[in-house]
Amino acid sequence: MPVVGVIGGGQLARMMIPAAVALGVEIRVLAEVEDVSARLAATAVGDYRDLSTVLDFARDCDVITFDHEHVPQEVLRALVAEGIAVRPGPDALLFAQDKLLMRERLAGLGVPMPDWARIESSADLGAFLADHGGRAVVKTPRGGYDGKGVRVVDVAGAADDWLAEGPVLAEELVVFRHELAQLVARRPSGEVRLWQLVETVQRGGVCVEVIAPAPRAGDAVERAAAEIATTIARGLDVTGVLAVELFHASDGRLLVNELAMRPHNSGHFSIDGATTSQFEQHLRAVLDWPLGDTTSLAEWSVMINVFGALPADRIAAALGHQPAVKVHAYGKGPRAGRKAGHVTAIGDDLDDVAYRARAAAAHFEA
Amino acid sequence: MPVVGVIGGGQLARMMIPAAVALGVEIRVLAEVEDVSARLAATAVGDYRDLSTVLDFARDCDVITFDHEHVPQEVLRALVAEGIAVRPGPDALLFAQDKLLMRERLAGLGVPMPDWARIESSADLGAFLADHGGRAVVKTPRGGYDGKGVRVVDVAGAADDWLAEGPVLAEELVVFRHELAQLVARRPSGEVRLWQLVETVQRGGVCVEVIAPAPRAGDAVERAAAEIATTIARGLDVTGVLAVELFHASDGRLLVNELAMRPHNSGHFSIDGATTSQFEQHLRAVLDWPLGDTTSLAEWSVMINVFGALPADRIAAALGHQPAVKVHAYGKGPRAGRKAGHVTAIGDDLDDVAYRARAAAAHFEA
Repeated sequence: MPVVGVIGGGQLARMMIPAAVALGVEIRVLAEVEDVSARLAATAVGDYRDLSTVLDFARDCDVITFDHEHVPQEVLRALVAEGIAVRPGPDALLFAQDKLLMRERLAGLGVPMPDWARIESSADLGAFLADHGGRAVVKTPRGGYDGKGVRVVDVAGAADDWLAEGPVLAEELVVFRHELAQLVARRPSGEVRLWQLVETVQRGGVCVEVIAPAPRAGDAVERAAAEIATTIARGLDVTGVLAVELFHASDGRLLVNELAMRPHNSGHFSIDGATTSQFEQHLRAVLDWPLGDTTSLAEWSVMINVFGALPADRIAAALGHQPAVKVHAYGKGPRAGRKAGHVTAIGDDLDDVAYRARAAAAHFEA
Repeated sequence: MPVVGVIGGGQLARMMIPAAVALGVEIRVLAEVEDVSARLAATAVGDYRDLSTVLDFARDCDVITFDHEHVPQEVLRALVAEGIAVRPGPDALLFAQDKLLMRERLAGLGVPMPDWARIESSADLGAFLADHGGRAVVKTPRGGYDGKGVRVVDVAGAADDWLAEGPVLAEELVVFRHELAQLVARRPSGEVRLWQLVETVQRGGVCVEVIAPAPRAGDAVERAAAEIATTIARGLDVTGVLAVELFHASDGRLLVNELAMRPHNSGHFSIDGATTSQFEQHLRAVLDWPLGDTTSLAEWSVMINVFGALPADRIAAALGHQPAVKVHAYGKGPRAGRKAGHVTAIGDDLDDVAYRARAAAAHFEA
């Protein structure tokens, strides 16, 4: 039985477990602490930044993959030097770890992006602001997620604290019609499969809802998104699942916002809404097995994130109210604002599907 | 987080794991040996016939349920006496454990069955044969499954070896058009949900293929099967999933063949083919949570059992050949004739669905 080792024990690792069980694949998780979301598959607990911890974990696995993109390059490269299959590999992951390198590399691939610049000083930022109507988005190259490490700024000194640590990325503040995400999987031997383009709805920089397929995109945008994602997956030699977050700008441009080289929140709908889920596909891809059909199981899927907690009595109430909605709880202790689960509804009428998903999710509101 | 304890570590316990992961339910398995199919969730290894082993396992669980029906009544009743929730309970399980008691009880419920008799001696069997055209099916009341403990006989002395151990069940040899199964779930507070009636295809007394819905049954038979299954679930106070195996006789009668009080091979299609799988439903039912919608996700599902082994290279080949077929491997070592996995295809054209399922399954033929 092939053994897939997953570094990190969050909900993405957790949601790989059902796929591994079905495929007859053994899944082992290197957890940060004992009581992680993916504890059922945790076979080791330790620091993913510590080479000997990671090497000990990885040695008996057929392939190493990830719940997150934070494993240091030195650790990744040491694994590769030991002959361990790391997917996605360090050369690809680099571009998910460092937003400045990502922008430089995507520019080389000719992928459409917001205007951007490498900012070394407040003078640089001042110049960028002057060129972009006095407003910009500034991002730390590393460590940002869910709105952290991101600021909308309008004065040249607004990133001085970050600049003291090193260069930052400035981007045009894109006025967009909506945000989209194109999920794609690629296996080492080259096969690529895409799911339907989805619309993602963010609140406070955090994804709250995903609609599949994107209801307002249109064929031309769908084709462009598929081409962009395929270009990136191939150009960066990505293996496993890649999520390409996109802006559909008010002026019609389709622009790459962020990349994630792992299963992604925008693809959770695929567990219940597609023939092959992103978690099954990720395992197949990192094992270099043939990829699965990604056809949707219904006209529409709506996925809604649940934050804070999913107490058992509320899960039961949500299931009782919406018997056809699928509830996914991540097995985390309660913490305000933290993603704790999601719900998905599928069906042939978008209004009805969205209503049912929202009605189920409402049971978890504080 | 609610804790469900499962006695027995076979593939039925294994396939409860993905459902438990999604629902945020903790699943713990009392395994027969270390390397069971459900080893990922095994928290104890021991003999399910030993009361102290089972009590130690059960004490910290919110509810106890089963991978099989072989836990002795004394053990079940001792758990109940300790205040432990056992679902289904011993009074219900009795009728899945003892085929003679099952026939007597179903007769009391007025459920249609093949002609049957309790046989104490070869003289009894001779009389039953004389009344039924010289042929009958004889079954040991306990311990039979997949064709074991079942004989077709035509002479009065053909069950003497079994009769030395105690009474047996004789049944009319039913000439049938096809075999059907009606899967139903019931929760302690009374809610009942049924899946579509399925046709089961047996070879050598073992189920090899399941088609959902049963393509040749017709509305009247579907209604009758649903009524029979509901009557049995309520009449026997079943909690969890109940499978009612049925003969559709050549003379038109619909007759109860066997009962299983747990998720059942005839319901494996529901993992990929229904809104709520039998494994999720079983967990919801034994927790007394609201039951899920059982609507099928496509017009047709075809499930085919795989026997012997599912080596990784053949899984990859099957997935490559049939990208939309779902492969389920039970993580068992190879053994000729043993159920080792299954494949399921779904879609809107039965011929195409059956072709795809069979083409995928063919990769595992010896």
